[in-house]
Amino acid sequence: MKQRNVYLSSKELEYALQEYLGCLKDYFDEDATEEIETQEALGRITGEPVFARVSSPNFNASAMDGIALTAEKTFGASERNRIRLREGLDYIVVDTGDPIPPAYNAVIMVEDLIETGEGEVEIASGATPWQNIRPIGEDIVQGELIVPAYHRVRPVDIGAMLAGGVNTIKVVAKPRIAIIPTGTELVVPGQPLEEGSIIEFNSHIFGGLITEWGGIAERMMPIPDDYERIRASIKECCERYDMVLINAGSSAGREDFTRGIIQDLGEVITHGLAIKPGKPAVLGKVYGKPVVGIPGYPVSAFIVMENIVKPIVQRKLRTAEQPQTEVEAICSRRIVSSLKNKEFVRMKLGKVDDKLIATPLTRGAGVVMSLVRADGILELPQNSEGIEAGEKVRIRLARDLTAIENTIVCIGSHDPLLDILGNELHVFKPGLYFASAHVGSMGGLMALKKGEAHVAGTHLLDEETGEYNTSYIKRIFSRDEVALIKVVGRIQGLIVKKGNPKNITGFRDLERKDVSFVNRQRGSGTRMLLDYKLKEEGIKPETINGYGREEYTHMAVAAAVAFSGIDAGLGIYSSAISLDLDFIPLYHEEYDLAVPVRFLEKDYIKTFIDILRDKKFRQKIESMGGYETGRMGEIVFIG
Amino acid sequence: MKQRNVYLSSKELEYALQEYLGCLKDYFDEDATEEIETQEALGRITGEPVFARVSSPNFNASAMDGIALTAEKTFGASERNRIRLREGLDYIVVDTGDPIPPAYNAVIMVEDLIETGEGEVEIASGATPWQNIRPIGEDIVQGELIVPAYHRVRPVDIGAMLAGGVNTIKVVAKPRIAIIPTGTELVVPGQPLEEGSIIEFNSHIFGGLITEWGGIAERMMPIPDDYERIRASIKECCERYDMVLINAGSSAGREDFTRGIIQDLGEVITHGLAIKPGKPAVLGKVYGKPVVGIPGYPVSAFIVMENIVKPIVQRKLRTAEQPQTEVEAICSRRIVSSLKNKEFVRMKLGKVDDKLIATPLTRGAGVVMSLVRADGILELPQNSEGIEAGEKVRIRLARDLTAIENTIVCIGSHDPLLDILGNELHVFKPGLYFASAHVGSMGGLMALKKGEAHVAGTHLLDEETGEYNTSYIKRIFSRDEVALIKVVGRIQGLIVKKGNPKNITGFRDLERKDVSFVNRQRGSGTRMLLDYKLKEEGIKPETINGYGREEYTHMAVAAAVAFSGIDAGLGIYSSAISLDLDFIPLYHEEYDLAVPVRFLEKDYIKTFIDILRDKKFRQKIESMGGYETGRMGEIVFIG
Repeated sequence: MKQRNVYLSSKELEYALQEYLGCLKDYFDEDATEEIETQEALGRITGEPVFARVSSPNFNASAMDGIALTAEKTFGASERNRIRLREGLDYIVVDTGDPIPPAYNAVIMVEDLIETGEGEVEIASGATPWQNIRPIGEDIVQGELIVPAYHRVRPVDIGAMLAGGVNTIKVVAKPRIAIIPTGTELVVPGQPLEEGSIIEFNSHIFGGLITEWGGIAERMMPIPDDYERIRASIKECCERYDMVLINAGSSAGREDFTRGIIQDLGEVITHGLAIKPGKPAVLGKVYGKPVVGIPGYPVSAFIVMENIVKPIVQRKLRTAEQPQTEVEAICSRRIVSSLKNKEFVRMKLGKVDDKLIATPLTRGAGVVMSLVRADGILELPQNSEGIEAGEKVRIRLARDLTAIENTIVCIGSHDPLLDILGNELHVFKPGLYFASAHVGSMGGLMALKKGEAHVAGTHLLDEETGEYNTSYIKRIFSRDEVALIKVVGRIQGLIVKKGNPKNITGFRDLERKDVSFVNRQRGSGTRMLLDYKLKEEGIKPETINGYGREEYTHMAVAAAVAFSGIDAGLGIYSSAISLDLDFIPLYHEEYDLAVPVRFLEKDYIKTFIDILRDKKFRQKIESMGGYETGRMGEIVFIG
Repeated sequence: MKQRNVYLSSKELEYALQEYLGCLKDYFDEDATEEIETQEALGRITGEPVFARVSSPNFNASAMDGIALTAEKTFGASERNRIRLREGLDYIVVDTGDPIPPAYNAVIMVEDLIETGEGEVEIASGATPWQNIRPIGEDIVQGELIVPAYHRVRPVDIGAMLAGGVNTIKVVAKPRIAIIPTGTELVVPGQPLEEGSIIEFNSHIFGGLITEWGGIAERMMPIPDDYERIRASIKECCERYDMVLINAGSSAGREDFTRGIIQDLGEVITHGLAIKPGKPAVLGKVYGKPVVGIPGYPVSAFIVMENIVKPIVQRKLRTAEQPQTEVEAICSRRIVSSLKNKEFVRMKLGKVDDKLIATPLTRGAGVVMSLVRADGILELPQNSEGIEAGEKVRIRLARDLTAIENTIVCIGSHDPLLDILGNELHVFKPGLYFASAHVGSMGGLMALKKGEAHVAGTHLLDEETGEYNTSYIKRIFSRDEVALIKVVGRIQGLIVKKGNPKNITGFRDLERKDVSFVNRQRGSGTRMLLDYKLKEEGIKPETINGYGREEYTHMAVAAAVAFSGIDAGLGIYSSAISLDLDFIPLYHEEYDLAVPVRFLEKDYIKTFIDILRDKKFRQKIESMGGYETGRMGEIVFIG
């Protein structure tokens, strides 16, 4: 094997960023503004202060419907001494907004006029000079500052600038940023996906972020891992754009060319940051412009985009870095961290009983779904060894706090119907959300016990009574503490390949040398069912090929059978048919949601139960296959 | 005069909105979705849940650079019992991301390999099955929910959907909203502005708001006040768009046609809301679509847009109404409110000494600048008589709280150089802002005394000593409590029309019958100077024509002379020349900023003083005319 590159450094993030911004001083100092129509300026950043060119109003205007006249003519008027005025001679009729001729200096509103005949009125009180007149410049005075430089233009600013006669303004030019995806394995969305190919989606995430930050993103077609071709593309982009991002190839592997090419064309300031994920970033400068090598894993890439690219775009755009909102939460699990790196942990947040609970999501750098699911990011400093369960942490929000506070948290056993249920809830009440985490039935009940969830999916068979769920709840909770919301009866069985090529009929076949198996994680109801049945049938786990490989959901088990060369897994019917697999039904079981009784009176749980009881919803679930919905939404109190 | 229309009602806002939303039930129930490319979906709202069509990765992939092999071949390996493996026979070389052939089930990373020759390696520890392999579906499993319906698409969602093979998605169609400005006086921006014409800018504010809320705004050309022409336009727009807004003509005046036309074409649900500003709104329905008559004054219009139109757009777009952030602040002034209406008061916020201070801006419905300047809105309920100074109030934020907290609050006497200074500060440190309110020198010192400002502009002549500012500070504050930041020496004099047609030479001329005057407000340094000089010269105020008309800034005085038929005002040189007026210099005075000594050590005040001391900044101020900057930025402690 060829020699691997080595990192130039493992620099502390803040230091590396400040050093990099310092190296780019000339780049930031360069004035890049453009003149645009004021009416097109929404969201743009002003490049200079904007002063009014005309006053608004630019004439003395009536502020009322009524008559305009000289106040002096009304002096002395009273109930006992009414003054009669004649149209044309003493006054003119004006509507709100009408100009006041120079001869007049007051408006009497129509409500205060006594009509005495055509073309004449009487008044019973005097007018004061300038009453009911909007003077010139009441709103905006010519020469007045409307908005300062480096101000993000809002709708009202556009209105005020137009009112002030400013029809074009100078704004900060949007930085144009080229994104070059690299990797022989990449295919663009829509192209056929062969084994070994990866859909190129990172550039779309980068593009979206850059758009949100106010820049212009230009995505290039992916380039295979070829030094010369990548070099040519980087060179051309450095000539044509304000900034260049190269995705993947930033590490120190055999085909990681980014560092070398930047060094060749310009200068590498940093290679390797002391952060996780995101370590293999390259911060470079070519032709005076920032050129950043971004790691290939989507989460690593996202962290480098947020922490390196965003501050550069913001500084170039002259926008202040928006401090992100932080909240304090209680960490539900232990998080171990190394002392080597600053870590960014994606967190799920949930508000249960007025406590904000934070739970770490998977830390795998390749899991883009962890970013989709994240409510916030926990930053563990470089010198931290981690967080204990129950410890208070500060989370930087990635989602609106109100949305988080209006989310029903479901932790426990997984069933694909939860996705449909959550969706239905949000459609019915767009202000209400549903989040589910899959930790198995026992894990769910434990989460309820610790006050970390509103409901817990559970399907736990009491081996002695043959009853589902109730005996476990009795054992774990106090009397009347937790009830069950009945959901479905469903079928557990062996998920096998289409056509059942290995002719598997039951657990006995799992002992065969030619049969591979995929298991569920410990604590899941399905795993407990398996272990119970294996014991019953006298099958030793170690004789099963694949007993040690654990997946966390029914869908993941089905996917392993469908695509991964695995012959069988234990799971539910709906997940088998959703991937067009065969299914050997074995056991009926009851899947319910455990819910603390104190939540049953809450509006969000009532809405939730209403949906379960809805006839159309039941039909939708039944159409997924293998579900009995007869008791759906029934509350069972456990005395 | 013709009979005025009458309001149909003065309905409570919340009731009127709920009633209106109820009347539009069929409109909201109608499903309006469209299919678009996933990569174009940033910020759009999903119309249905999105499920993965392929797994990601869709093959078992190496998670490391190293070799792929069967774990079984490595069992028993240790330091004492190294196992030798041969390329091709026992293993293949893989890079991160490479597919793992079905025969293999583990990856050993390159760091754990001992190279013993070309095409062979030794290992000193065993591999466990599936180690260092990213299994199929590790990120996304085919059939898995990626995002629910009615979800606003973020950059990471686009990435995850593309990774899951979802290249097009169904999104909620953007409601298309027609905006019809009406009024014979309206001219579009850029057209010549004659007396009596008003630049039509409201439709641009509406358009910007609608864009921000996620709709599509289509602005029509302004239509004169002609019943038939307005009717035709409304009718056509009702046929072609999802919603129609008619601006102005919604009140009950002679030329207010909106109510009548909506009634003719469809149905008026409400005419008149119990809110201020915003009362004359018309809520109607034509061809099943919402048609809203919006008042003409920009602030009234804005309030109706926020409180009626926004909830309709959000409901149509299936987005939850985002609750707006509220903060608690101390109200610095008394606000009187009537019991008839719910009032929306634009407020300026400032953080001084950890206290958040809220000060009402002008309540005039015609002042769009009050929306530009507002940091938040105070809602006074219908049954409130108002707020006392010092009372705690809740303010709905219109600006980022961090920006508010990083704003230097300057209250007191006005000088146009403050605009330049504030701009310079923000340009130098984009995270720092400057806000100035013009209440005169005495008002500024009082605001400092009450802890409502960081600095106060002041130019107060001690009539006995001839000294500026210090004696007032000594009188009002304790010893060493407040210092002066020297700003400029400047010239006060009479601002007169270009060429001085009335041949005004001094205060004596103000007594002339043919000379009109505009005054400054009581408490301003300029007013105090005037009153002192008039007394000195024995001129009686009542002999001056216009002594009673007060303006709040030098610029407003200059504007009155330039455009309003006024002959003279007392003010500073820079404001006269900015409007190309003549100037009769009378007195030199010193304009300083008073600052509590405790703020002098704060970073933001240091930055502020640095700018005053900057040579380029001084030159800029000098170029405005009439300023001496020799002592600019000097601190004078007052013992």
